[in-house]
Amino acid sequence: MKIELEQVEPAEIENRSFEIIESELPHEIDSQLAPIIKRAVHTAADFDYVDNLCFSDDVVNKALEAIKNGASIVTDTQMVKAGINKAELKKHGGEVFCFMSDDDVKEMAKKNHSTRARSSMDKAAQLDKPLIFAIGNAPTALIRLYELIQNNELKPELIIGVPVGFVNVVQSKELIMQCDVPYIVARGRKGGSNVAAAISNALLYMLRD
Amino acid sequence: MKIELEQVEPAEIENRSFEIIESELPHEIDSQLAPIIKRAVHTAADFDYVDNLCFSDDVVNKALEAIKNGASIVTDTQMVKAGINKAELKKHGGEVFCFMSDDDVKEMAKKNHSTRARSSMDKAAQLDKPLIFAIGNAPTALIRLYELIQNNELKPELIIGVPVGFVNVVQSKELIMQCDVPYIVARGRKGGSNVAAAISNALLYMLRD
Repeated sequence: MKIELEQVEPAEIENRSFEIIESELPHEIDSQLAPIIKRAVHTAADFDYVDNLCFSDDVVNKALEAIKNGASIVTDTQMVKAGINKAELKKHGGEVFCFMSDDDVKEMAKKNHSTRARSSMDKAAQLDKPLIFAIGNAPTALIRLYELIQNNELKPELIIGVPVGFVNVVQSKELIMQCDVPYIVARGRKGGSNVAAAISNALLYMLRD
Repeated sequence: MKIELEQVEPAEIENRSFEIIESELPHEIDSQLAPIIKRAVHTAADFDYVDNLCFSDDVVNKALEAIKNGASIVTDTQMVKAGINKAELKKHGGEVFCFMSDDDVKEMAKKNHSTRARSSMDKAAQLDKPLIFAIGNAPTALIRLYELIQNNELKPELIIGVPVGFVNVVQSKELIMQCDVPYIVARGRKGGSNVAAAISNALLYMLRD
């Protein structure tokens, strides 16, 4: 079989990808949300994100304002942290935290018979700064955020709630959408560290472009 | 709406997830390949991986042998590196390399009017050790691996070829499947850093369990 490669300049690969995505969208999408939706589609080559992403009222303006004011991002995996454009975030004063591998988080989880993801959210809630949460893996992290918000122990600037999987994933996302908090959620089972990083970066690139 | 959480012990969440995946498989799958297929489905909550994953002859035995003999893993993103269980790999003597952020790779890419992914494969080809490549993002990395193999400049133990996207992604995977090299490839557009890490870990856990 003869395989024909498309000739695209290195700097143009991303633009060309977004053109293809644009041309294959199943229907029109909101222009303010489009960069987020298209970057989620891009990171998984999965057009399901066109319809499963849910946005709270005015979330983009709120999220961009938070980033401009120096909000930091807390993640539930090292992969999300690795995927976020930390140089862009730093321009606004924010940094990325992931507490999953911390010894005190491991001990807290063991002691409380809980998950590290849950304990890492407790640790994050102690940070005295504006926070965005980018959750790409653990529904238990999202459930703990819900509890902390309900108990008035945490007031996040934004929750990117896109854990992936089969146990309590669907439910954890529905819980977050019942909170009075700005959110971007991938309804259903789908999501992932890549999607959490992609949505974070889409917001950062809106401020750059 | 009342949201009911499933009560699952932290240590049992992964097992329960795999039970659910097993129960929803669209058809029977090969028992030796099952741990790889199921972990790919798990990482993206996407059953497309049941049918898009392609395996070269006897690839599992060859891959496990390579890991046991201390093969290292080269990735095309920091996210894949972050996602691989490095402690498990280290037990067998291997480590994970990602050259994407290296200054010499950036310079080489600029000089050659190429991508950093491509240059990072050239750098990896200089390593004098058995190598597994886990490519979750860049088709240009996969295309460069194809060229290096065709030129007898590289003989990988295994290529995990699961870049994601829209420009030359489909083609790059077909090229690898034409090489005389052990491969695990996600045919089509889908894949990602999460999938590359999941397949790597599935192999590592076969040796652990």
